[in-house]
Amino acid sequence: MPANKQIHLDNRPEGEATAANFKLVESQTPALADGQVLVRHHYLSLDPYMRGRMNDSKSYAASQPLGQTFQGGTVGEVVESRNPKYAVGDKVVGFGGWQQYSVVDATQPGALRKVDTTHVPLSHYLGAVGMPGVTAWYGLVKIIAPKEGETLVVSAASGAVGSAFGALAKARGCRVVGIAGGPDKCKYVTDELGFDACIDYRQHPDVKSMSAALKQACPDGIDGYFENVGGYILDAVLLRLNAFARIALCGMIAGYDGQPLPLTNPTLLLINRVKLEGFIVSEHMEVWPDALKELGTLVGSGKLRPRESIAEGIEAAPQAFLGLLKGKNFGKQLVKLA
Amino acid sequence: MPANKQIHLDNRPEGEATAANFKLVESQTPALADGQVLVRHHYLSLDPYMRGRMNDSKSYAASQPLGQTFQGGTVGEVVESRNPKYAVGDKVVGFGGWQQYSVVDATQPGALRKVDTTHVPLSHYLGAVGMPGVTAWYGLVKIIAPKEGETLVVSAASGAVGSAFGALAKARGCRVVGIAGGPDKCKYVTDELGFDACIDYRQHPDVKSMSAALKQACPDGIDGYFENVGGYILDAVLLRLNAFARIALCGMIAGYDGQPLPLTNPTLLLINRVKLEGFIVSEHMEVWPDALKELGTLVGSGKLRPRESIAEGIEAAPQAFLGLLKGKNFGKQLVKLA
Repeated sequence: MPANKQIHLDNRPEGEATAANFKLVESQTPALADGQVLVRHHYLSLDPYMRGRMNDSKSYAASQPLGQTFQGGTVGEVVESRNPKYAVGDKVVGFGGWQQYSVVDATQPGALRKVDTTHVPLSHYLGAVGMPGVTAWYGLVKIIAPKEGETLVVSAASGAVGSAFGALAKARGCRVVGIAGGPDKCKYVTDELGFDACIDYRQHPDVKSMSAALKQACPDGIDGYFENVGGYILDAVLLRLNAFARIALCGMIAGYDGQPLPLTNPTLLLINRVKLEGFIVSEHMEVWPDALKELGTLVGSGKLRPRESIAEGIEAAPQAFLGLLKGKNFGKQLVKLA
Repeated sequence: MPANKQIHLDNRPEGEATAANFKLVESQTPALADGQVLVRHHYLSLDPYMRGRMNDSKSYAASQPLGQTFQGGTVGEVVESRNPKYAVGDKVVGFGGWQQYSVVDATQPGALRKVDTTHVPLSHYLGAVGMPGVTAWYGLVKIIAPKEGETLVVSAASGAVGSAFGALAKARGCRVVGIAGGPDKCKYVTDELGFDACIDYRQHPDVKSMSAALKQACPDGIDGYFENVGGYILDAVLLRLNAFARIALCGMIAGYDGQPLPLTNPTLLLINRVKLEGFIVSEHMEVWPDALKELGTLVGSGKLRPRESIAEGIEAAPQAFLGLLKGKNFGKQLVKLA
């Protein structure tokens, strides 16, 4: 029964989320019951959707209860098992939360999934070959449904979702243009991820400038947009959409803290006969096997080279998460726990 | 060769459209060539989409050329024919424009359509059993795709599109709530069109009040919304959407003159995993036969009782059109020409 450090949600943010919303708690892991396994977490996933869960209000993610371990995706290793299907040493993906260990009832379908780390490092199962990768896959394949040769744009392009989107779209013969913050991220997006172009939003901080940059990067207009950020970038994209464009609405991180950011000219959705669809990937479990298979192959073959920002130790999780909300991470944000 | 009064678009509006944008012109109808027919228009259709065509800028409707007869749907009677398929006296639907007569090359597919006025008055082929009716049908059947028992809302409910939407939705077992301006229109919507409820937007002139009215009229939330107006009504509807709601974006008349009206909180589209789709019905000709058949049956059987606002004479067309943009019409806006 090892000691187990956990991060609880202690109180809800008013406006911007802060470190004071979280609380470090130490406990003992309980003894296992039949069917349970004890997982030692190697990595905790930090994801933008968690900001929504900090609020009490209705969100696409259920509200995180106060005074309990903050929920989240984890990868780790079975260190004790009272379940015949799991052996000590098995590498597993689960939803263990912001803590060092979790006790999992492995008889529940979907509670744990064994993974093979021969070709794919364990941490990537929280990113490119995990929820963020499948998110990109769903938005691309099921909502945007691109034809070869179409031009697609994705915001937060260097992130876990954006980078997977780029590889998946290139594999379908599309022109892919990313939007990211700063020259280093943009260089990574074009040079290492293979995007056709990347726009640095810091160089284009308003609608007019961003719209001009999009015009240059997308000379044939935009057929599909995968939205992670919202705000003025969405306004600018709307000005460059082709008729019958599709928008996969995955996240609007720019508005997660504080006041909602308006969409300036929704009439453009009508003028261009746009289809826009919001989604949350956990409601589409039927696509996960196909998506994970393609993503695993892209990573295994080196066609998708995900980048990671790794914070050290559970104590670092709140600050790393707050940094993620401000775009301080570079690629998938993880916390290394073992 | 009868004299033919026409209304031309003389100049483009800056901001609000005015009567000075139009010009009355008198000409002679030319002699017919082989294949052509001369149609005497009985009614001209006035439709909100025409406002978009007055602008030079990109719109979902192509720009109307200056110095030419303003384009628009018409019904009338063949008065001279050099086409073996059309006889003098045939009642026809076409796109004859803002004028008393049109010369039509009836060899062109789709240029004219003969209609039967036994059960459906000729004018309704410009409304419930014409483009507006099919518009309602497409948004309902192809975008909202409702299940029995779902709650649907439509703005501009007493208009040509809204009234057809209500009848089509009731036929599918839905709860249908209209939004219209003033007690007379609301009474018509519930008492004659059979909507379950109607909200008078003049009594609810802001988001908060409209949202409260929607909550009362839609106790189970909103599953589908057919949008004709935009502005704060759309904002209010977004606050009452259920998860997986669908929005058919047909018109945003509130923003047609002047500055675009923003959508205040697009994040709600994500939170509720909404599907929103803009469309223009002339791009979906494949649905017209099925749609017109159902609409004709609804009108013929008295289940859909369309109301019409009829202006007299081609000279009255510009003022009637400007009134339509302000909601001064009651039901389908027509101009009687013969």
